[in-house]
Amino acid sequence: MECYLDNSATTRVLPQVADTVYKVLTQQYGNPSSLHKKGLEAELILEGARRDLAQVLGCDSSEVYFTSGGTEANNWAVYSGYELRRRRATGIVTTAFEHSSVIEPVQFLAEKGAQATFVAPDITGHIDPAAVLGAVDENTGLVSLMLVNNELGTILPIKALAAQIKRKNPQVLVHCDAVQGFGKLPLSVHSLGVDMLTVTGHKIHAPKGIGALYIKKGVHLKPIIRGGQQQKRLRPGTENVAYAVALAQAAQIADQGRVQNTAHATALRDKLLGLCAQNSEVAVNSPADGLPYIVNLSVLGIRSETLLHFLAEQGIYVSSGSACAKGGPSHVLRSTGMDLARADSALRISFSAYTDEREIDCLYQGICQAQATLSRR
Amino acid sequence: MECYLDNSATTRVLPQVADTVYKVLTQQYGNPSSLHKKGLEAELILEGARRDLAQVLGCDSSEVYFTSGGTEANNWAVYSGYELRRRRATGIVTTAFEHSSVIEPVQFLAEKGAQATFVAPDITGHIDPAAVLGAVDENTGLVSLMLVNNELGTILPIKALAAQIKRKNPQVLVHCDAVQGFGKLPLSVHSLGVDMLTVTGHKIHAPKGIGALYIKKGVHLKPIIRGGQQQKRLRPGTENVAYAVALAQAAQIADQGRVQNTAHATALRDKLLGLCAQNSEVAVNSPADGLPYIVNLSVLGIRSETLLHFLAEQGIYVSSGSACAKGGPSHVLRSTGMDLARADSALRISFSAYTDEREIDCLYQGICQAQATLSRR
Repeated sequence: MECYLDNSATTRVLPQVADTVYKVLTQQYGNPSSLHKKGLEAELILEGARRDLAQVLGCDSSEVYFTSGGTEANNWAVYSGYELRRRRATGIVTTAFEHSSVIEPVQFLAEKGAQATFVAPDITGHIDPAAVLGAVDENTGLVSLMLVNNELGTILPIKALAAQIKRKNPQVLVHCDAVQGFGKLPLSVHSLGVDMLTVTGHKIHAPKGIGALYIKKGVHLKPIIRGGQQQKRLRPGTENVAYAVALAQAAQIADQGRVQNTAHATALRDKLLGLCAQNSEVAVNSPADGLPYIVNLSVLGIRSETLLHFLAEQGIYVSSGSACAKGGPSHVLRSTGMDLARADSALRISFSAYTDEREIDCLYQGICQAQATLSRR
Repeated sequence: MECYLDNSATTRVLPQVADTVYKVLTQQYGNPSSLHKKGLEAELILEGARRDLAQVLGCDSSEVYFTSGGTEANNWAVYSGYELRRRRATGIVTTAFEHSSVIEPVQFLAEKGAQATFVAPDITGHIDPAAVLGAVDENTGLVSLMLVNNELGTILPIKALAAQIKRKNPQVLVHCDAVQGFGKLPLSVHSLGVDMLTVTGHKIHAPKGIGALYIKKGVHLKPIIRGGQQQKRLRPGTENVAYAVALAQAAQIADQGRVQNTAHATALRDKLLGLCAQNSEVAVNSPADGLPYIVNLSVLGIRSETLLHFLAEQGIYVSSGSACAKGGPSHVLRSTGMDLARADSALRISFSAYTDEREIDCLYQGICQAQATLSRR
């Protein structure tokens, strides 16, 4: 039995979503910018996808811009959000456990003169809202906060934070990297009160290579890619119509199943945590109030990579951290102040709506076998 | 009969290429950065695609970077190519009929202090090599030249120009936007002698949303998108594995059929030009030595858009200019100094390897009907 428990790294594309991609590629292949019927047909499909995605995000379709993925959307929000406020406010506030596609652009801007503050999570994996708020002052132009941490599953109180930040300094632009929460948490950009929000397809059973940035009406973000009139000149380039439709379709499917899927993920998590509670050498790193789809735990005495490969041999696929860091030490776990030995033996197990309960048994058996075989004790 | 004669705007994805996309999306869906077997499998597929594409381009696979398309690749080459030479050389030389994804980044840099020269084509649609060479001096850091003009089909002598430019100033970086020539002209980056070269998938029967930038070994281009270790940190973000494979596959198919396809396109062009030669109100705008896949002509007395819609009603799809300009006045035709009335009645007809000869008859009949019905005379 193959157990794919690395759904926070990426997901299998749903067959009906892949069918859509195939159909658009071979039949509705026009260029949305072409003036003839074949182009118009493609444009209608593209704009339908934008409308469907906007509906899931709770915004107007004119506020949705398709990108090549979460990384591009995060880069765009950080660079252009900062640029929009730079003349009067050069401060950026973010957290120390953001995704590298937020952290690295912020570091790049810091080298160019921005004042960057990285608020660290505490040892429980939580960000103290007071610490974020305390870092915001009259010089703050941009705040970028993730909705759900990708390694721990920590949920940040974006709605409350955005409101408090804007009360303290109404000029601040608030960006939210919602990649790991999208399709899993109730998400309405208007109710969250953010100015920009990033989503991506490949964490919700749509393809890799498509994402979107929500930009609130009235926030006049400049493009980072220029040339061509597509997407109001803000994100030019011939649109990836097939994947845009796939993203919207997968978002709708995830949204419709959200409540049920959350219950399913919670049951999977509770089962896994129940099994681990019997095992004195397993320590749970994820916060108890985190997203149920992500469980980070340390199998003490066995290095993450060793365990990961041991499990992979048995067809059980998990992660030692963010796939984007490819085995490098996790900046997320280090930012919590976790001791090195524990961080060094951390595993991230991540579910999807389609994860089977038997995969949890399989995983736990694999962990126990690894302990019997590999443990350094 | 549907006649799709707008293949320079975009092409229908080949069924076997769409099959590949479907298979990767649903079966080989791992994240290439994941350390387990599912990730490794995806990485092998991705690197296989990079190798296949590199072989078609005549370079090493370590010199190929996948992007979200030609627009991103052109932006990357212009911004980062300029940045790499900026301290010692702030001049950029390009042509006035480049694609907007080159022109707009160059204009943006010009606003920030770059000295930009836009060499205009002559009335025959040709760029004078001496004019390009004359614009290059000791302050030139970057030269960006397209291989084939997208509206006229003009072929630029990139190999000779690159050699002469580098003889005059060896520090100059030469970028080539090869989007319209890729898969149609013999293309080896080493033999062309360029430092960077842009290709895209959707002009060669691969999907929209995938392209690549060749960066010559030793040219240390900085990224424009940051965060994550993918593609040697130069183009981070989870790779679009399915489309990368599709691009490589379509490139191989185009390359294998190149000689035969060129003969086919030449026959189509000759047939169309032969028909038009009987029509005193049709003037050909494309140069006689241009790429045979693109025929730009003016049906005098009928405005482009009017004729385009008339033809579209009959299922004949052509273009009035670049799709990326969406009906705006063509900067390409204006740059040649063509008189307004003629530019205003220009049509771009563009073939693919799969265009049927009967589509040419269909088009010509459509033009004649339009002349009988619409002509302002």
